[in-house]
Amino acid sequence: MSLSKNQQKLILGLQQKKNRNKHNLFVAEGIKVINELLKSSLEIDAIFTTDDFLPDIPSNKITRVSEQELKKISSLKTPNKVLGLFKIPEEKKPQTKGLIIALDEINDPGNLGTIIRLCDWFGVKQLVCSKNTVDCYNQKVVQSTMGSITRVQINYLDLSEYVKTTTLPVFTADMDGKNVYKSQLPTEAVLVMGNEANGISDEINELVNNKLTIPRFGDLQQTESLNVATATSILLSEFKRSLE
Amino acid sequence: MSLSKNQQKLILGLQQKKNRNKHNLFVAEGIKVINELLKSSLEIDAIFTTDDFLPDIPSNKITRVSEQELKKISSLKTPNKVLGLFKIPEEKKPQTKGLIIALDEINDPGNLGTIIRLCDWFGVKQLVCSKNTVDCYNQKVVQSTMGSITRVQINYLDLSEYVKTTTLPVFTADMDGKNVYKSQLPTEAVLVMGNEANGISDEINELVNNKLTIPRFGDLQQTESLNVATATSILLSEFKRSLE
Repeated sequence: MSLSKNQQKLILGLQQKKNRNKHNLFVAEGIKVINELLKSSLEIDAIFTTDDFLPDIPSNKITRVSEQELKKISSLKTPNKVLGLFKIPEEKKPQTKGLIIALDEINDPGNLGTIIRLCDWFGVKQLVCSKNTVDCYNQKVVQSTMGSITRVQINYLDLSEYVKTTTLPVFTADMDGKNVYKSQLPTEAVLVMGNEANGISDEINELVNNKLTIPRFGDLQQTESLNVATATSILLSEFKRSLE
Repeated sequence: MSLSKNQQKLILGLQQKKNRNKHNLFVAEGIKVINELLKSSLEIDAIFTTDDFLPDIPSNKITRVSEQELKKISSLKTPNKVLGLFKIPEEKKPQTKGLIIALDEINDPGNLGTIIRLCDWFGVKQLVCSKNTVDCYNQKVVQSTMGSITRVQINYLDLSEYVKTTTLPVFTADMDGKNVYKSQLPTEAVLVMGNEANGISDEINELVNNKLTIPRFGDLQQTESLNVATATSILLSEFKRSLE
């Protein structure tokens, strides 16, 4: 078996969200990432590989391809032996316990990927995304999560509706909030992180009173702001450090 | 005045470190970044702009270019009105006080840029880099620091020599160290962060006894590791939080 024109067209098409939703499939690449996804409950649709690899996959799911064929369907600079198509799992009902991270229009796939990895590290099981947050099945996100995407439940929903109805206390990361180092933080909460350029949207801002700030230490106080992923890491660390 | 072939060749050449060192120049782009650099003590070599902009720059430093010309010399997808050449400042003697971050072979320009921004935010005035760490005048680094690069002193040096001779206590970020949340951290120290794939080098590891770990909270304990920039943000926060 080798790569058909239709397969190539399908795979390249999955770089776009509308096609991912239409076919209910997403792409992952490279031995490390594919191995992580195979450990999860994700359903495999097809594997394209240049190598003897993946003995446990049913052979009708595997297509052997040449290096050149792999290059045609890969979005990596250096394709790494295998590309897989996986079914996008059905969204489960959002969890309502523990510490939950919510994202208010995060646009950068690298930031979303880093935040998913952080959730996994800090034992955050639920990530809630506003509908205008970048799609977590975007290939750049999938690649950068290194498998964490299978261990964090991700829901896309109407964020202001969610904030209005949750029974958990809601916090936002804000430039003019309470010093996080001097705040008593609950173990169960929703922490909302805002857009890279504009921060928390007005709609959410009006709904939330608990605003947290990571204070600046620089003398000159010129640093514009922390990147949203690094801010998330510091705030997550603050929510979790007392549990250690 | 418009763009000459020689200027174009020079500017594109500066994408390589050897040419930056030869000409002692680096490139920055976009109104925001250029404005930040102009606020600093950096010396301007030349400004190429499509716009009426920068009234305070001597006119012999300014070359008006067309959008098309700017596109030819830009490394941005969407060139933003101005590209500047700045002189690489002479390295000052490393500072020996306060909290110092040291990097042991950081390869990714985005990670270095984020760490420079974090140093600026947390008032860390000195960043020490092993000679095999990515060049801070790499354009991706310059762009991602958003001007912080002018407010943090950066030295490239023999890291093991530095670690051997510093009078400050030295810490490394390590997977098997002491829980950072339970550690008493000094206000003056050197914190060494390791390579993205391999962590701290053997050479440095042998010299340092104070190893700090950010504990994992996930049940499954499968997350491979934190990205070096997010790990730096959490450790910096821990070193600084008691000062607030």
